[in-house]
Amino acid sequence: MEELKVALLGAGTVGSQVVRLLEENAEDFAVRAGAKLKIIGIAVRDTSKPRDPAIARSLLTDDAESIIDQADIVIELMGGIEPARTYILRAMAGGASVVTGNKALLAEYGPEIYDAAAAADVDLYYEAAVGGAVPIVYGLRESLAGDNVLSVLGVLNGTTNYILDEMTHNGLSYAEALRNAQELGYAEADPTADVDGFDAAAKCAILASLAFHTRINLEDVHTHGIRDITPEQIAAAKREGYVVKLVASAKRRPHGIELYVGPSLVPQGHPLSTVHGAYNAVVIDSEASDRLMFYGPGAGGSPTASAVLSDVVAAANKKVYGGHAPRELIYGELPVLSAAESRSRFQLRMAVPDVVGVLAAITSVFAHHGVSISAVAQESVLPENKGHNRAILTVTTHEASQRALEDTIAQLREGIPVAASEGQEDPGTLPVEISSFIRVEEA
Amino acid sequence: MEELKVALLGAGTVGSQVVRLLEENAEDFAVRAGAKLKIIGIAVRDTSKPRDPAIARSLLTDDAESIIDQADIVIELMGGIEPARTYILRAMAGGASVVTGNKALLAEYGPEIYDAAAAADVDLYYEAAVGGAVPIVYGLRESLAGDNVLSVLGVLNGTTNYILDEMTHNGLSYAEALRNAQELGYAEADPTADVDGFDAAAKCAILASLAFHTRINLEDVHTHGIRDITPEQIAAAKREGYVVKLVASAKRRPHGIELYVGPSLVPQGHPLSTVHGAYNAVVIDSEASDRLMFYGPGAGGSPTASAVLSDVVAAANKKVYGGHAPRELIYGELPVLSAAESRSRFQLRMAVPDVVGVLAAITSVFAHHGVSISAVAQESVLPENKGHNRAILTVTTHEASQRALEDTIAQLREGIPVAASEGQEDPGTLPVEISSFIRVEEA
Repeated sequence: MEELKVALLGAGTVGSQVVRLLEENAEDFAVRAGAKLKIIGIAVRDTSKPRDPAIARSLLTDDAESIIDQADIVIELMGGIEPARTYILRAMAGGASVVTGNKALLAEYGPEIYDAAAAADVDLYYEAAVGGAVPIVYGLRESLAGDNVLSVLGVLNGTTNYILDEMTHNGLSYAEALRNAQELGYAEADPTADVDGFDAAAKCAILASLAFHTRINLEDVHTHGIRDITPEQIAAAKREGYVVKLVASAKRRPHGIELYVGPSLVPQGHPLSTVHGAYNAVVIDSEASDRLMFYGPGAGGSPTASAVLSDVVAAANKKVYGGHAPRELIYGELPVLSAAESRSRFQLRMAVPDVVGVLAAITSVFAHHGVSISAVAQESVLPENKGHNRAILTVTTHEASQRALEDTIAQLREGIPVAASEGQEDPGTLPVEISSFIRVEEA
Repeated sequence: MEELKVALLGAGTVGSQVVRLLEENAEDFAVRAGAKLKIIGIAVRDTSKPRDPAIARSLLTDDAESIIDQADIVIELMGGIEPARTYILRAMAGGASVVTGNKALLAEYGPEIYDAAAAADVDLYYEAAVGGAVPIVYGLRESLAGDNVLSVLGVLNGTTNYILDEMTHNGLSYAEALRNAQELGYAEADPTADVDGFDAAAKCAILASLAFHTRINLEDVHTHGIRDITPEQIAAAKREGYVVKLVASAKRRPHGIELYVGPSLVPQGHPLSTVHGAYNAVVIDSEASDRLMFYGPGAGGSPTASAVLSDVVAAANKKVYGGHAPRELIYGELPVLSAAESRSRFQLRMAVPDVVGVLAAITSVFAHHGVSISAVAQESVLPENKGHNRAILTVTTHEASQRALEDTIAQLREGIPVAASEGQEDPGTLPVEISSFIRVEEA
């Protein structure tokens, strides 16, 4: 039986599980891959650092290039842009197929790397870059090759999902939930990449490129994090039958592709509403298939290693039997819509003076900007020490462009003129305090 | 650009959607497949029968063999064993790759057909044979190639799922729900294949072969239908936090593979509990990936056509660029356990005379057969006109073998001797009437 040389770059949580599984199931892998898979070296920056017991010290090297140059298949699990990018391009130029889990790299340099793979006639696989063990790259790249994708909606970041879960189920504040996540190792000391939505945005860019066969970069994704989410918002959402999730959304609209990552109200019956903790899920609506969902652990050493190894088997198969991975992916030219053009339902919460006519005045501002209202709820009336009582309004809109919504908000913030009702003094221009606005997903 | 000749066998609901989608998206398909896909003919039994407008009359032929012999790719959507089997083998022998949605054929002759594909060095794809648009064949055949599957649990039959949904949500009897399903076209005039579990069993055999790399035939699957399910059972399940689903289950046990299809109590938090109507879902537990779920429409012309076309694209890719579909699948030699050896939790409902000591007598019968009890509930006491009052007991067991459970039931049905309590006459041997028993899935 043929033997394929595998070089591993990186020996962290995922890398050590890749080594363990490859060794424990060596015979199975040989049958499935059509060749023995031999790890010829594991490149790390510091060979003296303590490692997982699965990692044989004799395989460690700080000379990545020498193992890359000998390899048939290079598994890149270092993360970050450099030197990962240089190593991957070097591997491809030398004729090795590449398996990577590097979402940051693909979100930024994806098209360059896809082109390099095609030019070198080698394969590139990256199932582990999005959704851990969830086979969503596969799903979009191959299972939906017979269909046209209309939208991709995902819960793709376990850290924020854990934080929002804690806020929802245990009533914690954002700061408390983040601290818990950090103590449990679910969030990093600097949580920016997760809580500001950049991790989810990178995954969104990768999935959208696949779904719409179009070059999409990280900066095309309008991104908003969860730092502003308050327990009050979560409680109000719950009362109305929603849960707050950090949703990554990529939709085909009549005039282009709409991309955003941000907190959204997800209806409790929606498949994404039941995705908890470190689990990820992706819901794909397409022309012919209606709705598919892929669900599973979105992170973790061994689930992610399983995704890496399915790619290794596919890459090995091609090395042994010929053919190549789907390559003709980025052939579309759909424009990416600006954030302002993107459309959604929205929910706004605002405090207004509780006077006769205020509701008519507010709804007329929405109407003026073409934003149609689907529901208004007056949640409570707070006594104030000066002037009028104040009401908390929750306004849910039908689908509107973000621009129209932002214009509406700007005008509301300037204050609204209310006509005096009979026998009352002219209330003049009343202040409107908008405490939050958030997207609302359709059921 | 190269052109590949496609022969379609069958022009029913799925076939006509395949033709429509291939024509409407011809350019996309050409790019994705790497070749123009040209339908050279559509074989039907009766060319004069009225057809969906997507089917051009000029393509219809009753001479299947002549289009098979010219084709690069044959799509078989006739269903049934013959002549589908003969046509598929003929296509392969002639060098065509085959895409089929024929679960009955694969469940019965799968290994023969897999071998024929390998011998002829052509590809066989059958995503549409299980779960409609749900890419579960792909998932098991490729996404989990880097992992070891522990269990596959699926809701795979839309007809029974619709009937059980109607019984659960609208309180209908089985007969009423079946009649509704027949009126809506969800169930056939002869509903045997669906309601007796044979359709799900065929799918279960196909998935288990893929999951465990072992030859599994339809008759290996211990199958039980839903005809006996009563509204009382459904209502009792609901009260206890379960829903009744027709579950297809394939599990790797220490000594072999355990397969069954039958009604089961699924806990309300379980991902399968939320699968409604014609949707299908498959939950896969594996060593490294933990738990994955695939969910989507399990039937219907256009979703199933989408699955067929993803296979056509994959087959075309291989024709153009070389390589072949994963083929080294059936290399395992795990034995299939008999139904008696299969293990599960069970729930039994029984009517017993309500006398002192009856519970001790009953639980000792379970203990005698090594069946451990996890819960006993006494649901209600019915007054009787003669002798003792009767109690309805619901006994839920821990995991036990089906043989042990059947032995327990047999002994209970013989009646149980109860010792007289002080000051009472000897109750003698009391009758136990077992009204139902059903499997219980773990959360």
